[in-house]
Amino acid sequence: MAAGHASRLINHGPTVLVTSRDRARRNLMAAAWSMPVEFTPPRIAVVVDKRTWSAELIAASGLVGLCVPCAAQADLCFTVGSESGRDLARAGTDKFARHGIACFDGPVHGLPMVEGCVAWLEGRIIVAPDEHGVDRNRHAAQAYDTIFVEIDSAQADTRVFRDGRWHFDDDNADLHTLHHLGAGVFGVPSRIVRGRTLGPAAAGA
Amino acid sequence: MAAGHASRLINHGPTVLVTSRDRARRNLMAAAWSMPVEFTPPRIAVVVDKRTWSAELIAASGLVGLCVPCAAQADLCFTVGSESGRDLARAGTDKFARHGIACFDGPVHGLPMVEGCVAWLEGRIIVAPDEHGVDRNRHAAQAYDTIFVEIDSAQADTRVFRDGRWHFDDDNADLHTLHHLGAGVFGVPSRIVRGRTLGPAAAGA
Repeated sequence: MAAGHASRLINHGPTVLVTSRDRARRNLMAAAWSMPVEFTPPRIAVVVDKRTWSAELIAASGLVGLCVPCAAQADLCFTVGSESGRDLARAGTDKFARHGIACFDGPVHGLPMVEGCVAWLEGRIIVAPDEHGVDRNRHAAQAYDTIFVEIDSAQADTRVFRDGRWHFDDDNADLHTLHHLGAGVFGVPSRIVRGRTLGPAAAGA
Repeated sequence: MAAGHASRLINHGPTVLVTSRDRARRNLMAAAWSMPVEFTPPRIAVVVDKRTWSAELIAASGLVGLCVPCAAQADLCFTVGSESGRDLARAGTDKFARHGIACFDGPVHGLPMVEGCVAWLEGRIIVAPDEHGVDRNRHAAQAYDTIFVEIDSAQADTRVFRDGRWHFDDDNADLHTLHHLGAGVFGVPSRIVRGRTLGPAAAGA
């Protein structure tokens, strides 16, 4: 799939799994806070708390993986959002090994892509040096934990995403995305409504 | 409601209506791309194309309103996302008047808050001058159309949001949020799943 479809994969606000790898170290975390910021080139923003193990690996490698988990993975998603990769690393392991989470390598950067998810993206942290060589994106990272990422690869499960859009049907309900309402409770957008264009003075009538 | 709950209102990635007002000029637009970035103080990021009428009014006033529309408002949401506030302003009107969209004034900044939505936020554009007086947030706005907003008021419809979280039940289905899948098709997270904490080596089994 073209990386240009990347924005459509997270346009509707799903929780994502952020993956990272630096040499032999790897991690994943759940992130409710991400959004596209541009169609072309495909760019997204994601909030990663700067104190986390993920932030450390992302800073070291300059790379970020994003996997979009599905309804069948609610337990996985909640679990990896509730434990510390740094603590596991100190114990010589990681969340993938601890929970037997199977991955494949992302096609461009080799980032961990979680099997069973319904979309997978790889990207690079965008660095934007000013005339003094200072990265103009550093402030957003430091002040708001917000990192801007340019997407280099985007893939999706064609059972639920094809022709550039999600198809949430009754027969693929386990593959619908997760939207975190808080405390491990997720809304799943299995119900579909279509907006029609209103004429003058109809909307509030 | 405490503004501190602001992040929970958009944590799950709903489409929002961005409202703006500068003196007698006002506008609203649909925005699929927003996210919280911080709990305390409550701060969010939202993407507003810098060429739009909304961006012009927001820049002039420094203020942003966010309303969270619900399933009953899919037509309204799609419609105001498909037309230009600038064109209407040239014709001496605006989207509110054209479609008969009823509003109340936000309690802190008097921003237009759309009736029938299920949550309403008001905020200020965050300005972060460096030692030369240059706003360090200008780059994100210019390069990624991303503006950072500190939330000053947050309200919600208690039929569907209370005790700091959304309650999407069968009896308030019209009040569930909209998540834009593209081309006017919205997913509505009426289906609820709960994540459980997994023990070691269970997740991938």
